[in-house]
Amino acid sequence: MIKAGIVGATGYAGAELARLLLMHPEAELVWAGSKSYEGQRFADIYRNINGFFDRELKADDLWAMAKECDVVFTATPQGYLSQNLKKEMLEEARFIDLSADFRIRDVSVYEEWYQLKHGAPELLKDAVYGLCELYEKEIRNTRLLANPGCYTTCSILTLYPLCKEGILDPSTIIIDAKSGTSGAGRGAKTPNLFCEVNENVKAYGVTSHRHTPEIEQELSVAAGEDVILNFTPHLIPMNRGILVTAYAGTKTGSLPSWEEIKSIYEKYYGEKKFIRFLDQGVCPETRWVENSNFVDLNVVPDQRTGRLILMGALDNLVKGAAGQAVQNMNLMFDLPETMGLAQAPLFP
Amino acid sequence: MIKAGIVGATGYAGAELARLLLMHPEAELVWAGSKSYEGQRFADIYRNINGFFDRELKADDLWAMAKECDVVFTATPQGYLSQNLKKEMLEEARFIDLSADFRIRDVSVYEEWYQLKHGAPELLKDAVYGLCELYEKEIRNTRLLANPGCYTTCSILTLYPLCKEGILDPSTIIIDAKSGTSGAGRGAKTPNLFCEVNENVKAYGVTSHRHTPEIEQELSVAAGEDVILNFTPHLIPMNRGILVTAYAGTKTGSLPSWEEIKSIYEKYYGEKKFIRFLDQGVCPETRWVENSNFVDLNVVPDQRTGRLILMGALDNLVKGAAGQAVQNMNLMFDLPETMGLAQAPLFP
Amino acid sequence: MIKAGIVGATGYAGAELARLLLMHPEAELVWAGSKSYEGQRFADIYRNINGFFDRELKADDLWAMAKECDVVFTATPQGYLSQNLKKEMLEEARFIDLSADFRIRDVSVYEEWYQLKHGAPELLKDAVYGLCELYEKEIRNTRLLANPGCYTTCSILTLYPLCKEGILDPSTIIIDAKSGTSGAGRGAKTPNLFCEVNENVKAYGVTSHRHTPEIEQELSVAAGEDVILNFTPHLIPMNRGILVTAYAGTKTGSLPSWEEIKSIYEKYYGEKKFIRFLDQGVCPETRWVENSNFVDLNVVPDQRTGRLILMGALDNLVKGAAGQAVQNMNLMFDLPETMGLAQAPLFP
Amino acid sequence: MIKAGIVGATGYAGAELARLLLMHPEAELVWAGSKSYEGQRFADIYRNINGFFDRELKADDLWAMAKECDVVFTATPQGYLSQNLKKEMLEEARFIDLSADFRIRDVSVYEEWYQLKHGAPELLKDAVYGLCELYEKEIRNTRLLANPGCYTTCSILTLYPLCKEGILDPSTIIIDAKSGTSGAGRGAKTPNLFCEVNENVKAYGVTSHRHTPEIEQELSVAAGEDVILNFTPHLIPMNRGILVTAYAGTKTGSLPSWEEIKSIYEKYYGEKKFIRFLDQGVCPETRWVENSNFVDLNVVPDQRTGRLILMGALDNLVKGAAGQAVQNMNLMFDLPETMGLAQAPLFP
Repeated sequence: MIKAGIVGATGYAGAELARLLLMHPEAELVWAGSKSYEGQRFADIYRNINGFFDRELKADDLWAMAKECDVVFTATPQGYLSQNLKKEMLEEARFIDLSADFRIRDVSVYEEWYQLKHGAPELLKDAVYGLCELYEKEIRNTRLLANPGCYTTCSILTLYPLCKEGILDPSTIIIDAKSGTSGAGRGAKTPNLFCEVNENVKAYGVTSHRHTPEIEQELSVAAGEDVILNFTPHLIPMNRGILVTAYAGTKTGSLPSWEEIKSIYEKYYGEKKFIRFLDQGVCPETRWVENSNFVDLNVVPDQRTGRLILMGALDNLVKGAAGQAVQNMNLMFDLPETMGLAQAPLFP
Repeated sequence: MIKAGIVGATGYAGAELARLLLMHPEAELVWAGSKSYEGQRFADIYRNINGFFDRELKADDLWAMAKECDVVFTATPQGYLSQNLKKEMLEEARFIDLSADFRIRDVSVYEEWYQLKHGAPELLKDAVYGLCELYEKEIRNTRLLANPGCYTTCSILTLYPLCKEGILDPSTIIIDAKSGTSGAGRGAKTPNLFCEVNENVKAYGVTSHRHTPEIEQELSVAAGEDVILNFTPHLIPMNRGILVTAYAGTKTGSLPSWEEIKSIYEKYYGEKKFIRFLDQGVCPETRWVENSNFVDLNVVPDQRTGRLILMGALDNLVKGAAGQAVQNMNLMFDLPETMGLAQAPLFP
Repeated sequence: MIKAGIVGATGYAGAELARLLLMHPEAELVWAGSKSYEGQRFADIYRNINGFFDRELKADDLWAMAKECDVVFTATPQGYLSQNLKKEMLEEARFIDLSADFRIRDVSVYEEWYQLKHGAPELLKDAVYGLCELYEKEIRNTRLLANPGCYTTCSILTLYPLCKEGILDPSTIIIDAKSGTSGAGRGAKTPNLFCEVNENVKAYGVTSHRHTPEIEQELSVAAGEDVILNFTPHLIPMNRGILVTAYAGTKTGSLPSWEEIKSIYEKYYGEKKFIRFLDQGVCPETRWVENSNFVDLNVVPDQRTGRLILMGALDNLVKGAAGQAVQNMNLMFDLPETMGLAQAPLFP
Repeated sequence: MIKAGIVGATGYAGAELARLLLMHPEAELVWAGSKSYEGQRFADIYRNINGFFDRELKADDLWAMAKECDVVFTATPQGYLSQNLKKEMLEEARFIDLSADFRIRDVSVYEEWYQLKHGAPELLKDAVYGLCELYEKEIRNTRLLANPGCYTTCSILTLYPLCKEGILDPSTIIIDAKSGTSGAGRGAKTPNLFCEVNENVKAYGVTSHRHTPEIEQELSVAAGEDVILNFTPHLIPMNRGILVTAYAGTKTGSLPSWEEIKSIYEKYYGEKKFIRFLDQGVCPETRWVENSNFVDLNVVPDQRTGRLILMGALDNLVKGAAGQAVQNMNLMFDLPETMGLAQAPLFP
């Protein structure tokens, strides 16, 4: 059994991770840490796990956790891990970080978008970007895993194959994303109250959302050239789910057929268990992936405008956070990739 | 592997049952029947099971299913099974009926509340009422299982221990219930449109809801005397979940303490895996049981009024329908009761 | 033009009151006070009133407001007005208090349920309980108006006629109420976050909600005897609306017919503009009263159990708070009762 | 008093129109027509107008209505009016059509996108496109008014000023729109059931939505050249509201400052009562316009990508349908433009 610890177990992502680990046949949750609720019974804060975990929440003590655990997950605010991680800890345990601290390879980009000083730039080279469908081999061999963001996972997986194949014109990419409210976290803030979110839709972080450089970084690697794009997130009155609607022209100006596109997606994702490329004309919807690690994808070529409309949907707390973290753990510990993640999506 | 078939697989309860069976380690879904969508791929109607079940929906052919399956689930409108079931079919397969046809022991009560002629009154004596926590022994030995209703399961489990112990005054019982909209089914009816349900709460079926006699039947058995009660369901703008708030006075006029009440619930449910009696002062909430087979219960004695307020919460599609059907299957086939039902509730 | 001021204008009730006053043909909002947002433009906090009110929020200065305004509304936490109101202020302006400070006639009951010391018990005798349909005459002649609570207004109006006529047995009354989330206020609290409220229903304040003594006080007056009842509120995932479902037996044990009941409601409410007693068999629903000052009512006699099921629906921010406050202002200033409140409910 | 009739009064747009007319000081609803509910009391179908309109729904008889009414509103499926309108009727009454029949000037474009034969192409030249902020003068002088679509109104008003000024590069325009579910109508269809829409977001009509040619027509007129654009609508789990997020590059490649953009919007909309251009950095949100005829707009220039992000929000049933129809009626009958439309948006 893998001994697992979570720093920040009482945020939505941390608690979802705990839930998944508690049902994982090869993992054991030995340390659930929480700054806000230390000393309280975890199941009194998240009553869904009542009967699954009867211990109290502990302090966030990274050194002690590194010694006691085989893997430490950090579901913490930006800056926490880079400021607290020591190289020696990595010898004691593997780390899977759900924050952005080790996602951005260029420390100056991180510091500009996050307005934070990076606390451990020397460890960046040890970190692997944990988008499982793209970096499986590297993930299997790292001890410091940067688990991707929710919008990021959805955006990159949606656009990657056609970027990688050099079909998309990188200067034309626009990503319009829609997210459920659990992505905003469990902090008690007025804009996230029920009455503020319900019966409303809004864009936010327009031109400045911090997932932008992460998407650009990975699509630039794929495209082999710098990708600068528009990314606009929107807040939707639902608990879970991200839908990405992306727009892009092609380098040649001519459009591939849907069948050609499908074959390209199959080339990259055909063996990937958690990616479902849908039938022609079927749009991804968040309800069909809720409570699962799946990503549903499709593309519509528009002959009128010469653009492709690319769509992707996932559950922001599963494939967009905790599920992918478990998937990464599985890879890092040589377990079957789908272990503990095989549930069918929940509907309705 | 148990070969399972479902008649009416494309209603919400039928599809949830299919989803649970597809993840069940000892069951195989060999026949998914649908009158409305026969011939279409099941995963094209319910895209959540895309990748889990790639076959087409078949006709509802009860004889053929009885021969091909070990267990046939009927998630059908009232009247279907009583009009189509033959005694000989029961020799071929076991039947688990999610409709009301075999729940009501008195055929005249059934015919009055459902305004239907019962098609097979002679089979009623073979049927067992499948409330697992009350009838485990009988369930293990039946071939015709009447799976209880959603409101019913929640109401009976909430009130049973104190009725059985003779504490409640049966003439004072009032059940005020609140249900998510999946309980209304997937039929295309104007009152169930998003804009009609959202931002609304209403009572319906006031004094006439058909789950009333089923609740009264079981509580009468428990109390050892006739129970006539008020049951008022309400429609809530959420997908899943039932909350029962019940009110009752006591026979003696004096109230047991919460600790005494707790010990009574432990007596009846202490060994029951899917029942969680909560800590003092903690009210059941539907969010903590969603996507699980759990029932959360608690009771508040009110010294001011001399009444008990009894509360129960469950997921209407799981413990209130498909999950309990699987639990019954497990018992009927001597499998561990929790097999395929061990997932922790989903939140948020 | 009536010069109006609001203390606590940036809570949900205060802001709804501001909105109504800004559209009122005979009122002018001259002072919008806010402790939290003083100095900010009101329309930057509530962007719906952008273009309707372009001034900044001011401090809550009760003396200055009394001098500058004809009427001061206090949409404040319990205790504020009783601790700050001076008898002399009542000579300067009329006060309409949306808190509970002057609703409870017995100061010891107030202090017990609210766990607060009352700051001005000597002013209680000057206060009138502002349930417009019951106390119109007294309201017209007061300078200190205690605007009723939201649950309270709905509960009392639902039960009043049959209590007043001596039909209901006061010892049997049970009120099960359901409220939208705006009733919980705009404070940034985790339990009111979107993801905590959405897809959930729960009871709260079971046996201890502070609207209980207010309901009991008024129904006791109506019944001419002490009424002790159960009141259980529930939180519903919607913005606005309260639905009351009440249960009661009769003194005689026999039930009046629906037609008899209807004639009793017409006796008390036939001339009341904001009360709609519905047709037989039609249940009140919150969607039909949203954004209006209406209360929809109906009653179902249940011969089986010998009880009446009484139902009422209103918009908690309008008739349950700000709309009734305007209605009270209209009465206090001899304006037509419906002025500024004539909008038809909004659907969907 | 203007005598008004509505064909199709029991759809969501028709009923909202009825509601607005019932509160309009200079209009009288003399004929509410409904094919589905003829003979039933209107207030029994839409109980919000209970007490405001006590008559029965009548048949849709266009000739009789033309004779009895000063203005006939048609809130009907596409094709109805073009197939039933006669030139002589226009001499009897003015017509305001909420369908698309007279919006598209090129009959072949209409017939291609709507897959319908146009029944009265000879009347197209008499029709005026009723986007009040652009065609006020023409609206005042027409007897046949084509009331714009909901997505269309929002999209055009958002993009018009910068198209008209020749700033936007028309080949780069992408419109990503999000709509509440009332836009899908009141027809009883499975995809619009509560449980299908709630907790979901999806794109639909990708590359083929029928509002596309209407947007292109008007922006082409503005730009003075053909505009071919991408328009992607999304269905959001809320009742009302449309949010448009549009993306466009500029002809010169350089970006105007926000202040320059603001001054352009003021040039076109400065005198327009229902348009609110927001402060810098404030994104339009649907909650701030609900239940009103307002359109909230803003633009963010993105120096990184060289694109403008343009945003607009409105209430699809008010400014997107019934409210704009009333605004058009006001203009056509020389009433103040805002009459009957002065309510402040409702929040929460």
